Amino acid sequence: MALMNYLTQCTFDHGALEQTPKILDRLGVKRPFVVTDPGLKANGLLAALLAALGKEPAGVFTDTPPNPTESASEIAAEAYRAGQCDGIVAFGGGSSMDLAKAVGLMVNHTRPFEELGGSVKGMKHIGPIPPLVAIPTTAGTGSEVSPGAVVILKNGRKETFVSPHLVPKAAICDPDLTIGLPPSLTAATGMDAMTHCIEAVLTPVVHPPAEAIGVDGAERIGIWLERAVKNGEDKDARWHMMMGSFEGALAFSKGLGAVHGLSHALGRIEALKLHHGTLNAVILPHSLAMIGNQAEAKFARLRRALGLGPNGDLPQYIADLNARIGLPANLRAMGVNEEHGADAIDYAVTDLATASNAIPFEAEQYRDLFKRAL
Amino acid sequence: MALMNYLTQCTFDHGALEQTPKILDRLGVKRPFVVTDPGLKANGLLAALLAALGKEPAGVFTDTPPNPTESASEIAAEAYRAGQCDGIVAFGGGSSMDLAKAVGLMVNHTRPFEELGGSVKGMKHIGPIPPLVAIPTTAGTGSEVSPGAVVILKNGRKETFVSPHLVPKAAICDPDLTIGLPPSLTAATGMDAMTHCIEAVLTPVVHPPAEAIGVDGAERIGIWLERAVKNGEDKDARWHMMMGSFEGALAFSKGLGAVHGLSHALGRIEALKLHHGTLNAVILPHSLAMIGNQAEAKFARLRRALGLGPNGDLPQYIADLNARIGLPANLRAMGVNEEHGADAIDYAVTDLATASNAIPFEAEQYRDLFKRAL
Repeated sequence: MALMNYLTQCTFDHGALEQTPKILDRLGVKRPFVVTDPGLKANGLLAALLAALGKEPAGVFTDTPPNPTESASEIAAEAYRAGQCDGIVAFGGGSSMDLAKAVGLMVNHTRPFEELGGSVKGMKHIGPIPPLVAIPTTAGTGSEVSPGAVVILKNGRKETFVSPHLVPKAAICDPDLTIGLPPSLTAATGMDAMTHCIEAVLTPVVHPPAEAIGVDGAERIGIWLERAVKNGEDKDARWHMMMGSFEGALAFSKGLGAVHGLSHALGRIEALKLHHGTLNAVILPHSLAMIGNQAEAKFARLRRALGLGPNGDLPQYIADLNARIGLPANLRAMGVNEEHGADAIDYAVTDLATASNAIPFEAEQYRDLFKRAL
Repeated sequence: MALMNYLTQCTFDHGALEQTPKILDRLGVKRPFVVTDPGLKANGLLAALLAALGKEPAGVFTDTPPNPTESASEIAAEAYRAGQCDGIVAFGGGSSMDLAKAVGLMVNHTRPFEELGGSVKGMKHIGPIPPLVAIPTTAGTGSEVSPGAVVILKNGRKETFVSPHLVPKAAICDPDLTIGLPPSLTAATGMDAMTHCIEAVLTPVVHPPAEAIGVDGAERIGIWLERAVKNGEDKDARWHMMMGSFEGALAFSKGLGAVHGLSHALGRIEALKLHHGTLNAVILPHSLAMIGNQAEAKFARLRRALGLGPNGDLPQYIADLNARIGLPANLRAMGVNEEHGADAIDYAVTDLATASNAIPFEAEQYRDLFKRAL
C-alpha cells in the first residue's frame, strides 16, 4: 500500500477502503458524518463504505446534487450538528467532496457563507474545518487533495472556495470503487483529470514540482483512459486513472486556465445540468489551439509525454481522444447554443481560473473560445 | 516569487532572503535562534541574514561541524534555552539544517536523544519541534524540505532521525546565496542532489508524484550543474541547481538506496572528514552498474530525462559528469582504502536507505559496491 504525504496524506491502492476505520481513528474522529450522493446509495457503494466502517456513522447525507449548492450544504450542516458529529467522510465524486467541504466551512464559521468565497477574497476568513477524509469514487476531480471547492450560492453565483484548511486531512484512493463507473462517466471524469494536468502545466506560474507531476499525469491518462473506458473492469487501468486524477489535483496547485473558466461558466446553466468533465473535454482542444505557439516549450513537453512526434498536433490529439471515448464533439451537441454565450463570457472573465491561463484571456478571447467550442 | 506548498511551504527565488522577517512573523516566532557554521560567519553570508532579519536574533550558534554531532547539538540547545528562543532559523548546508533539527528535538523532548533515532524505531516518540525555518546556502542536501536529519551520536553511530515533525515549517530558497560557493563544493553538493533524484526514482516504492519530481530534478541537474560549476555567477544555473536540490528532497520521500547506505557508512570515518555529496557522486556510477537491467523501465526514464539515447550508458554518463566537474574518480582518491571496508559494510547494511534500494542489498552486494568504488 503506497502511503503518500504531500499536503494530504493519501492511502492509495486496490482495497484501500478497508483502511477507513484506522484512518478515522488516527484523526480522532469518533462520530463521523458521511456525505454522499443518491447514485452511490442506489448502486451499493455506500453500503460497502458502511460495512468497511464497521459501525453506524453519526450521520449520513445522501442528497448531494450533481452540482453542489449552498442550500443542500445547509441541510447537511444541520444534520451534522444534530448528529453531534466530529468529522466528515466525503464519499463520491467532486460534488460530494465539495459539498463536504462546504459543510465543514458552515459548521466551523459564523460569517455568512458567501463571504468566504474566493471571488470576494474570503480565503483570509477561512479557519480550520473538522477533520475531513475524502474517498473518491470517480477518477477525475482530484478534490481529495485539492484546497478548493466549487459551490453554487443562493445568489446564483458559482463560487470557488480556496484555503489550505480545505485540503482533506486524509484521502483514501481505492481504484476498485471506480470499477462500476459506466464508460461515459469514466470518459468525462478522465478528461477532467487530463484537463487539470494540461492546464496546470501550461499556466505560467512557476512551480516545477507541480509541473512535473502534471506532465506525468497527462502521460498516464494518455496511456490508460481509453482502456478504462473500453473495459471498466481493467483494474490496472482503474489504478492508473485514479493516480492520474490524484496527480492532476496536485499539479493544479499551480493554477488552471480558460478551459475551467468557461466550463465553470457553462456549468451554471441549471436547465442543462452539464457535466464539468465533459465541458472541459469539449473546450480543451479549442483553448489549446488558441494558445498555439505561445507556450511552445510546454507544448513540446506535453507532446513528448503524450507520445506525439515533435510536430504532433496537440489540439487534434485531444479532439481525437474525445471522439474515441465517446464524448460530444462540441458544446452544441450538449445543448448549448449561441444565446448562452453572453452570460457565460461575462462570468468566465471573473472566474479564478482565468487569471492563471497560459495566455491573457479577456472577453474577446472568451468569445472566440466559445465560438470555436460551440 | 513562486510560493510552493507541499509538506513545506517554500518561498523560492532570487532575493527570497528578504522575506525572512515576514515568514517568521507568520509563524509567530518573536525570538529566533540562528543555527549556522563558521564558514558562513567568515564569508559574510551570516551578516546578510542578520541584516535581512532587521533585528538581533535571540541566539546564534555558529559552530556547526561539517558532520553534525550530538555534542554540538547539545551546546546549541543550551544556548537556545538560555536565549528563551521560540523558533529556529537554520542557515547553511545540510549540516546546519540537520543540527537545527537536532536542537529542535532536544529542546522539546525529555527522552534521551538516541532513543529518537530511526534505527531504534524512535519516530513514534518524536513530537512537534519549535517552528523551524530553513534557508539553504548550498544546492544539494534538500534538507529544507526533508523529514530527516543525520547526526553522529556520542556512541559513534551515524543516526538518521525521521519524522514529519522535522520538516521545516517554511523554506526560504534564495539561489543568490549560492553564488559564492566554490566550484568544488558546487559540484559535490550538486551531485548529492542528483543522487537523491536518481535513487528516489529507482527505489521500488510506489509514489508516482515523487518519482515524476525526481525525473524532473535529474533532467534539470543534468542540464545546469556543469554550468554552475564553470561559472558560479550564472544566476540561472544557480536557480535551477537550487530547484533541482529542492526536487531531489521532495522525491526522496519515496526512499533512497545503497549509494546513501555506503556514503553514510564512510562519512563516519572521523579522520577523513569525507564530503557526503562527493561520496555519493563517486559511488553512484557503480551502484547503477550493479542495478543494471534489473530496473530497466526506470533506467529508460532516466536516460530520456538526461538526454541519453535509448542505448545510452547511464553509469558511464555519471562517471563522465563527475570527471568533467572535477570530482574524484574513486574512493581511493579521497583517502579511503581496503581497511575501511569491513566496518563500512557492517554499517551500511543497517542504514535506513538500504531497505529501499532498487534491488536487495546485503553484505555481499555492499562488498562488491565498495570494491568497485574503491
